[in-house]
Amino acid sequence: MNFQKHVQNPVDSWIAATSALRQIDLSHPMQKGMPVHPAHPPFHITLNNRHGDVLRSCGHSSSNELIVMSTHSSTHIDAICHVSDHGSLFGCHEATNEQTGTDLFKVHGAETIGPIFRRGVLLDVARIRGLAALDPAYEVTVDDLKAAEEDANTTLQKGDIVLVRTGWGQYWSRSQTYLGLDSLGAPGPGVAAGRWLAERKPFCVGSDTSAFEVMNHHNITLEVHLILIAQSGVHIIENLNLEELSEARAGVFAFAALPLRINGATGSPLRPLALL
Amino acid sequence: MNFQKHVQNPVDSWIAATSALRQIDLSHPMQKGMPVHPAHPPFHITLNNRHGDVLRSCGHSSSNELIVMSTHSSTHIDAICHVSDHGSLFGCHEATNEQTGTDLFKVHGAETIGPIFRRGVLLDVARIRGLAALDPAYEVTVDDLKAAEEDANTTLQKGDIVLVRTGWGQYWSRSQTYLGLDSLGAPGPGVAAGRWLAERKPFCVGSDTSAFEVMNHHNITLEVHLILIAQSGVHIIENLNLEELSEARAGVFAFAALPLRINGATGSPLRPLALL
Amino acid sequence: MNFQKHVQNPVDSWIAATSALRQIDLSHPMQKGMPVHPAHPPFHITLNNRHGDVLRSCGHSSSNELIVMSTHSSTHIDAICHVSDHGSLFGCHEATNEQTGTDLFKVHGAETIGPIFRRGVLLDVARIRGLAALDPAYEVTVDDLKAAEEDANTTLQKGDIVLVRTGWGQYWSRSQTYLGLDSLGAPGPGVAAGRWLAERKPFCVGSDTSAFEVMNHHNITLEVHLILIAQSGVHIIENLNLEELSEARAGVFAFAALPLRINGATGSPLRPLALL
Amino acid sequence: MNFQKHVQNPVDSWIAATSALRQIDLSHPMQKGMPVHPAHPPFHITLNNRHGDVLRSCGHSSSNELIVMSTHSSTHIDAICHVSDHGSLFGCHEATNEQTGTDLFKVHGAETIGPIFRRGVLLDVARIRGLAALDPAYEVTVDDLKAAEEDANTTLQKGDIVLVRTGWGQYWSRSQTYLGLDSLGAPGPGVAAGRWLAERKPFCVGSDTSAFEVMNHHNITLEVHLILIAQSGVHIIENLNLEELSEARAGVFAFAALPLRINGATGSPLRPLALL
Repeated sequence: MNFQKHVQNPVDSWIAATSALRQIDLSHPMQKGMPVHPAHPPFHITLNNRHGDVLRSCGHSSSNELIVMSTHSSTHIDAICHVSDHGSLFGCHEATNEQTGTDLFKVHGAETIGPIFRRGVLLDVARIRGLAALDPAYEVTVDDLKAAEEDANTTLQKGDIVLVRTGWGQYWSRSQTYLGLDSLGAPGPGVAAGRWLAERKPFCVGSDTSAFEVMNHHNITLEVHLILIAQSGVHIIENLNLEELSEARAGVFAFAALPLRINGATGSPLRPLALL
Repeated sequence: MNFQKHVQNPVDSWIAATSALRQIDLSHPMQKGMPVHPAHPPFHITLNNRHGDVLRSCGHSSSNELIVMSTHSSTHIDAICHVSDHGSLFGCHEATNEQTGTDLFKVHGAETIGPIFRRGVLLDVARIRGLAALDPAYEVTVDDLKAAEEDANTTLQKGDIVLVRTGWGQYWSRSQTYLGLDSLGAPGPGVAAGRWLAERKPFCVGSDTSAFEVMNHHNITLEVHLILIAQSGVHIIENLNLEELSEARAGVFAFAALPLRINGATGSPLRPLALL
Repeated sequence: MNFQKHVQNPVDSWIAATSALRQIDLSHPMQKGMPVHPAHPPFHITLNNRHGDVLRSCGHSSSNELIVMSTHSSTHIDAICHVSDHGSLFGCHEATNEQTGTDLFKVHGAETIGPIFRRGVLLDVARIRGLAALDPAYEVTVDDLKAAEEDANTTLQKGDIVLVRTGWGQYWSRSQTYLGLDSLGAPGPGVAAGRWLAERKPFCVGSDTSAFEVMNHHNITLEVHLILIAQSGVHIIENLNLEELSEARAGVFAFAALPLRINGATGSPLRPLALL
Repeated sequence: MNFQKHVQNPVDSWIAATSALRQIDLSHPMQKGMPVHPAHPPFHITLNNRHGDVLRSCGHSSSNELIVMSTHSSTHIDAICHVSDHGSLFGCHEATNEQTGTDLFKVHGAETIGPIFRRGVLLDVARIRGLAALDPAYEVTVDDLKAAEEDANTTLQKGDIVLVRTGWGQYWSRSQTYLGLDSLGAPGPGVAAGRWLAERKPFCVGSDTSAFEVMNHHNITLEVHLILIAQSGVHIIENLNLEELSEARAGVFAFAALPLRINGATGSPLRPLALL
């Protein structure tokens, strides 16, 4: 980043600085047939009007589409109202009260997530374990995370965006495999690793799987979601594409994302960037 | 913006510089009942699962939602495939061919819109005309735009994000009024102003109405869309909230937005920011 | 109805008898833009695939559509789970329990409504009041119903389908008028008339408005729904087209309808017939 | 069926006659997770409002739902606009013209299908082949149909409803199996059998699979759809439940169904009955 001293104003300076950084897209494209975790409604998209349906005198015609989705399709961030712990949302709000009514959640909805321009850290667990991708249902441990942190040559700080790479982003185009439906389940942090992450007080964690935490079909508790979101107020980003970031060996980077302000919603689709 | 010289790395430096800027949110929140232009499908959102529907042994429960929408709900950016001119998309692609199939548009879909970090210019037409908001069906002229450009103390440059303020963002909570359904229609640039804008070669234009261009119910041609999108390859952002930006008297600013990569779609919802 | 004695079997006989009856369609067609009561999600329909999107070697191509709706769009029947009285569904089921889970209602869902082949009675209140259509927010009284019953030349019996005509079916193509949004509200039975109807123990009541009962914007309680559905287990059919039936002066007729078996749903779209 | 001679009017007589018949429901219930042929949009249903979201002074509260579907979910009838033959709909309507616009199909939509009260014939191919269910991708032949017709002790007549039983209705609760996605495909009539059926000039054919015709993944042409719908104007009903009808050994029965009048749609969900 080369800050041009002669630039007269901060606006031009910031744009120049931003443009000088390498941008790595951390999102998967949204499309019909992409993997959607079975807990969520299906994703569907189709053209609604097509060109030619209405043709105006000047030659204008337009097309639009109809989308059916939850906010947990494709790359997305979980709002804090997404998960409860024994009926309580983070901060001791009673979930039943907050979700009753016609306007979704009264607290902790997606509209409360501000623009995100923060330090990101990649914990490349697949790399430090010498694997292209972790095994099905592999439980990422505290030691794995510590080794990955060391490999990233940094120390996690409060407010960071902490991304855990399992390598499963490579399976994105094969839904059954990606979702762990043709195996024991997707890998990810277990309860101990989830607690360790929560104690680092990140703003947000994320991974390249559909559920962040380890999914073993023999015992699905989703306790890591409970620890991070409901007990600690930490957002989770799922379905990240971390392959290019891993190849760039970028342990530390600037993370930029602009969640949609969907009132009362349990999350938002996201197009996050790593800037380095 | 104070670039700290002692910071060792560009990542921390960029985050610090970004955090030092004032952020102005240019989006409206997405919610049931918000104004949606009648050309587009309705927007609807409801909780799908609620807390308590499935309660896991550790105390975990979660909620998600179901959303029905087009990409032209709330603040959004039009993809170049959105509009055709006598059957042709920008760059002489035949619309019929590009839209036939099961995967929406083969060219110019929303996934082709990269992250946007560009110079923004506010053409505050309501202000230079001394009005809180322009009259219904008022056609913004080339002279209006030139006066507003002068008021912004800059000259439009190729690649800019050019936002035209009508003041109608103040009507957002009153759908019928905002959409111009209880009047002659919403104000905005007419054909001459649209051509003048296209000749400035911006990356994108935008406004605080649902259709950018002037909508006079006596004669709706949508020719400005045709000129900008189909003939010039210029994106349009609609339903912006430009009130705070106007109050800040920020004629020039950094514009940041991260469109969702919705494959083949005619646009994307957006949460744009002005940084100054 | 002329039962042909020489027909050898009851199947042919029934078909012949049925075909000999005059059929009057009591439904409105379902389409985009039709009136939907504001309490319910919008109705939207669009083609999903169109002919030509996938063309097979033999020349086959097909089209389908995507529909977004509630069961309370167009002509429909309310299931008994639709309304609660101080938290209780008909038969003292606690609504909160019955609606919690991932499969909609555990009791009184639309799948519990069997095929309907019953006696129908038209209470043509508009006719007996000498009006093409009742006034906005007109409260149909017990006396109105009794006069209409007498006009129908019958006495209501347990298990009947009792249809109350207001004449508002004529407004179907004008949504705002039909829904009473440009007036004080739609006419219909008030509380006293609702109680009187419930005491007749019909299987189902219905009318040619979107909410059956009188809707006065100054005081919407929906108490008639509570009396009929939650306290008496009587279904309500809304958005009927009763014009042809009224013109036929058919006070008594055979009513046929086959509700869809939508598991746990609060109603079903319906195409009811009067046979006479 | 015992026609009571002393009944004074045809309405009471018809109701009594209808009630005296045995009713066999030929539909599957509609619910989340049911099998939907991959050519069609997914089916999803969720509660929209729940009891308690809005509580009125009299104690009234209500619930409704949001449904996302095509008309080809669950038991349904195909409209004639559903299939084209080299770009032509039945009767030489050009598909491209008929489907262009904002209101779906201009001809042959579901609203053109009248109430159905016709003779039904069960061609129980699984039974005459001595199987609980036909093998995957088994092509039903003309000889199979003739043998089943003889077993039904009747001769197909013009205007009949002809239902072909494969036994696959028993797999309804196992989506992958039912849809033939874990085998070579679902059984059904091949081209020769399709032609033979079309020559009988039925009003409608149907079966207990998701696609009526044989689906062999090695060669999917859907030519039987083309022959019946696009070349012959014969409707197809899919996803029937024919198990009880088979057990009743009812070769001939009265078939009753009331398709929804969905304007311009390619089909309608259906709750058909056999009366015998």
